[in-house]
Amino acid sequence: MFTSRPIGFVSSPYKDTSEIPKGLGVKHEAEGVLTILPEFETGLTDIEGFSHLFVLWEFDRSQGFELLGSPPFDNRPHGVFATRSPRRPNPIGLTVVELLRREGIELHVRGVDMLDGTSILDIKPYMSSIPSESLRRGWLAEVEAGKNQGTVLP
Amino acid sequence: MFTSRPIGFVSSPYKDTSEIPKGLGVKHEAEGVLTILPEFETGLTDIEGFSHLFVLWEFDRSQGFELLGSPPFDNRPHGVFATRSPRRPNPIGLTVVELLRREGIELHVRGVDMLDGTSILDIKPYMSSIPSESLRRGWLAEVEAGKNQGTVLP
Repeated sequence: MFTSRPIGFVSSPYKDTSEIPKGLGVKHEAEGVLTILPEFETGLTDIEGFSHLFVLWEFDRSQGFELLGSPPFDNRPHGVFATRSPRRPNPIGLTVVELLRREGIELHVRGVDMLDGTSILDIKPYMSSIPSESLRRGWLAEVEAGKNQGTVLP
Repeated sequence: MFTSRPIGFVSSPYKDTSEIPKGLGVKHEAEGVLTILPEFETGLTDIEGFSHLFVLWEFDRSQGFELLGSPPFDNRPHGVFATRSPRRPNPIGLTVVELLRREGIELHVRGVDMLDGTSILDIKPYMSSIPSESLRRGWLAEVEAGKNQGTVLP
């Protein structure tokens, strides 16, 4: 196993988790900057060619993990591996962002949902998508369809 | 920062990296099993509802990192953050798999590209796709289009 190390940090408009939009159909349009440590700048070579990136980052303000939890917009509990809960056995977050431009060690992106100052663990190119017509989205689709209407939080 | 811990292990047909299909347009159709440690089984609750999963795993047979490297099907070097190279500052792999069925602590999946015995770090539901018409794929698209034809390895 390994000990994580930051390759950079997120600049985000969100200083507190309460500020991050949550809920059904929420679109993360917030812009932010991924600032990579100068020692890793060479690793960004050719990244400008990709429109979208996977960002792996650390839930560094989350403690411990919870195997069952309720997301903010559904009061039914779901397994941690069926949600994006921050309280995970390995506290790794995953966000897809749109790369707007690169300025040296700065990647200007759209779609951040991390807190300001979050440690970045890795960046990977987003190379292909599963066609949306092939996706089934379990409990999330049920909540969206209102099957759980009596218990949806506003 | 944190020290990684396995939540389970991959059973895959691939015992050696040379057996993993690589190259342009390669489709990962291999079936495998993600076996989750019994202590984390509750975390799988409701996962059956999702057709596709993100699997985060550890490049546990890779040593160190390389900021510039050439993928097997392009001899031009690219930055590690613009490739899926195993030699990364944090040795974390990411694969999207199709969930075929769950049997207790076993997730039977299609699309494995990990080595047999690989440590799993996390599983997350795949909730939405970037429409393929919105994607730009940089050097990868160039190689596909044959712009680098003189140097493409067969």
